[in-house]
Amino acid sequence: MAEKKVGAEEIFKEFKEHSISEFFRKNRQMLGFAGKVRSLTTVVHEYVTNTLDACEEAGILPQVTVEIKNTGEERCLVKVTDNGPGIPKRLIGKALANVLSGTKFHRYMQQRGQQGIGAAGCTLFSQITTGKKVHVRSGTDKEAYECDLGISIKDNKPVIENLAELSKGNFKGLEIQAEFAGVKYENSDHGVSEYLKRTALVNPHIAIKLIDPEGNTLEFPRSVNEMPQRPRQIQPHPLGLEASDLLDFAHVTESRKLSSFLIESFARVTQNKINELKELVPDIDLSKEPRQLSWDEAEKLIVAFKKIKWIGPELDSLSLIGEQRVGAAIKNILNPEFQAVVERKPKVFRGGIPFVVEVGVAYGGNAGKATAEGASGNILRFANKVPLLFDGGTCGISEAIRGLQWKRYNIDDFEKSPISILVSVCSVYIPYSGVGKQSVAQEEEIMEEIRLAVMDSLRILQRYLSGVRQRTTAETKYKTIMRYVSQLAADLGELTGGKSETIEQSLRSLIENKYKKIFEDESEIKG
Amino acid sequence: MAEKKVGAEEIFKEFKEHSISEFFRKNRQMLGFAGKVRSLTTVVHEYVTNTLDACEEAGILPQVTVEIKNTGEERCLVKVTDNGPGIPKRLIGKALANVLSGTKFHRYMQQRGQQGIGAAGCTLFSQITTGKKVHVRSGTDKEAYECDLGISIKDNKPVIENLAELSKGNFKGLEIQAEFAGVKYENSDHGVSEYLKRTALVNPHIAIKLIDPEGNTLEFPRSVNEMPQRPRQIQPHPLGLEASDLLDFAHVTESRKLSSFLIESFARVTQNKINELKELVPDIDLSKEPRQLSWDEAEKLIVAFKKIKWIGPELDSLSLIGEQRVGAAIKNILNPEFQAVVERKPKVFRGGIPFVVEVGVAYGGNAGKATAEGASGNILRFANKVPLLFDGGTCGISEAIRGLQWKRYNIDDFEKSPISILVSVCSVYIPYSGVGKQSVAQEEEIMEEIRLAVMDSLRILQRYLSGVRQRTTAETKYKTIMRYVSQLAADLGELTGGKSETIEQSLRSLIENKYKKIFEDESEIKG
Repeated sequence: MAEKKVGAEEIFKEFKEHSISEFFRKNRQMLGFAGKVRSLTTVVHEYVTNTLDACEEAGILPQVTVEIKNTGEERCLVKVTDNGPGIPKRLIGKALANVLSGTKFHRYMQQRGQQGIGAAGCTLFSQITTGKKVHVRSGTDKEAYECDLGISIKDNKPVIENLAELSKGNFKGLEIQAEFAGVKYENSDHGVSEYLKRTALVNPHIAIKLIDPEGNTLEFPRSVNEMPQRPRQIQPHPLGLEASDLLDFAHVTESRKLSSFLIESFARVTQNKINELKELVPDIDLSKEPRQLSWDEAEKLIVAFKKIKWIGPELDSLSLIGEQRVGAAIKNILNPEFQAVVERKPKVFRGGIPFVVEVGVAYGGNAGKATAEGASGNILRFANKVPLLFDGGTCGISEAIRGLQWKRYNIDDFEKSPISILVSVCSVYIPYSGVGKQSVAQEEEIMEEIRLAVMDSLRILQRYLSGVRQRTTAETKYKTIMRYVSQLAADLGELTGGKSETIEQSLRSLIENKYKKIFEDESEIKG
Repeated sequence: MAEKKVGAEEIFKEFKEHSISEFFRKNRQMLGFAGKVRSLTTVVHEYVTNTLDACEEAGILPQVTVEIKNTGEERCLVKVTDNGPGIPKRLIGKALANVLSGTKFHRYMQQRGQQGIGAAGCTLFSQITTGKKVHVRSGTDKEAYECDLGISIKDNKPVIENLAELSKGNFKGLEIQAEFAGVKYENSDHGVSEYLKRTALVNPHIAIKLIDPEGNTLEFPRSVNEMPQRPRQIQPHPLGLEASDLLDFAHVTESRKLSSFLIESFARVTQNKINELKELVPDIDLSKEPRQLSWDEAEKLIVAFKKIKWIGPELDSLSLIGEQRVGAAIKNILNPEFQAVVERKPKVFRGGIPFVVEVGVAYGGNAGKATAEGASGNILRFANKVPLLFDGGTCGISEAIRGLQWKRYNIDDFEKSPISILVSVCSVYIPYSGVGKQSVAQEEEIMEEIRLAVMDSLRILQRYLSGVRQRTTAETKYKTIMRYVSQLAADLGELTGGKSETIEQSLRSLIENKYKKIFEDESEIKG
């Protein structure tokens, strides 16, 4: 070979570490900053989900204003203002300008955000496309201030400038103002207004105001004046743990014995269960210090956990959209000819992580997606009450539905039917398939539950559709028979010598009675 | 409201930073570790791409052995051994057990890996599912050693244990041995053997041996004994830069003037171009120190760059699969009735990032994907010569093809045709949509180029298909006419008094001449 050989030392002389900010700076599309319309929707999505989480945690009915201005070609200024609890001054840099930090990452509860990336990702996106800092005003119940925020990309550290106190009563809540390039406002299925509309639909306790680049104001007023059921932070269930989780918890606990550590850190572990454990793993000393737990012992405990009969995890920790609200959302968006809602009981995946699936199905009216060849079936996806507008192609929700045997439900071809299926998944941990959180990983237990819920809803739809078909057939028959009834009555009258009017009347009532039953069944289903 | 209000201080008291290792520990599905079969394929993919990059850089024809053993239920030991340059001892920890570090991240050249996440992600995956360390043997041309590697997750630092020297001649190359749980070996479209088969097909200079859990050996021997054209590291082109890039380069350069910095750091910048720049941005002093460049000035320079007429980027920096190899790969995998290959010229996206698209189309034979209802169209995706087996649903490659007007190419329904389309994209930077690198982001310029290439190939297919149709019609007509020719000749003979044999002969040659032309055109296309 003519090619020069190169040794390891030469190859590795360029070896470098890089920060998570550098990584996302180079790969911003992984955060959802790909495509002009999508990038703008992603910005609004990150800020609005943060607002909703903060308001709900603070017990405040959320009110959020999103204002978008064009500041140049494919360049927008986005201002998001809320009435939330604000962010303490000492943490503002880390909260909005440090990728991978936040309050939510270590929590075991249903939240919209869960990564500590979103808002800092927006700061990064603003900085790398416009070089501008993000301007923030924050008012908590203790302090009010404003400042400019950027990220030192090389080491992923916040840069805070122009910090100034505001008089305390002056502002309460959070206002973020940031400028982005490579973005575009568009009224489409993937645009900001559609995102906010769908957010409002499943979160009727929020008031949202959107001021678009042309100065038009679009309001989604609050329709429910009380907070939704509060999701609760829960302890992990023993069946949802892996050995590495158990070790991690054991190494930071303040409990002094393995047994008390297990009882205090995890759900459903009682002294009785500890006694059962002792018999299953007699060689592990449950009175030793938790930090002395070894990997092998942790693995043995996990295996033993699976042999014990546990009460399931606390499922009321989840906050659903609710059957009534799913129904109202569907009526509002699609105004369909027929709709049905199915709410399943909470289940667990990976052994111990609680989740719940809600499904609504809509048929006719504005259901389905309009295409050149007529309506086509579509899927409206939500995760922890956040609309998912992108990456449907690889989402576990879409994938679960794709494999269904539509013909069983009187639907010849989903792709060619005026049908919409709304699927919502809520969980203390949503396994998103990407950092941009627009698609749920294809986790088999979640997909199975979605499949069951959709099938439940399709069975209701099927009764309606077969009713419609039966009714159509029956109506045709009824009309045909009625057309001949006078002639028949006259002929019978002649044949039998009876009165043709009487015969006609009894024939008519005979026929009407038979068909009335079919029509009534139908209306019941329809109602 | 009965609900208690909570202030910012209380909400933020749980505020924490977390490391990138912690993040991926919690969200391992984002690295491709989702699903048992996929997880195992991801492991092999990460190790094999590293091997190929290292061997090619070192100028070594790659030879790699992948051995997989079942060690328990859904538990596998994976051993990957190569003949590459090895890894220097001083960097082994960071190379394989530190997420976000490596030689490739900052380079501007075509490589399979580009993130510095893959192999460290595998170390993490092994650790969190089995608690085991990864065992490594490495032999460079200077040293040979072995050790066990793990990650300290809290701070994303490597943990090295049992480091031992090996006598230098003892081992040359790299051997990684790691155990994983929650994985499964399967002979399917998404399994390890399919992955390696497709890798071998587009990289004929590699020798791959796979030993599966049942002890079967599957060999993909080397079919080309020379290295492919070496991709070259190039300088970024001015049109591919954003202001933030320019500033970053300016802050680390050793050049002393802005003008020399631009000439030395970027492609195609000459003194003449500097003179043009001076006229476009008269208020920027090009003789000042690069580190004094401000954002506003950088933005002005970027705007000015776009007004200058540049020579395009160096496109020969890319290493293609090659028309012949794409053709051979298709013949080998699909043995189709018809195939065509289209290789486009290199293009640029985002103004200055070079990329090239190669496309092969196959029809009939084993082309398409077998389904219960017969063959269905499918897409074989490759990026920088790496097969992409997952996340096709959101991939820019699939999306580009989805919108085509199939009927124009004599294809009634792609979903119901025995057709396969192989698409390969090579670039100095592939914009993957996720960290797991299985799908290309929907970058409009790349998609457009794919569309054009596929349309080119479909036009060739169309000629074949319309040839087939024409031939079928012609054959029917030919046979029908030939059936009557003797009778007709006899009748004509009687009518004209001519010799019926002579008439029949000239009629036959008349007809044959006409149809021969149709049949010949057809064979030409087929060949």
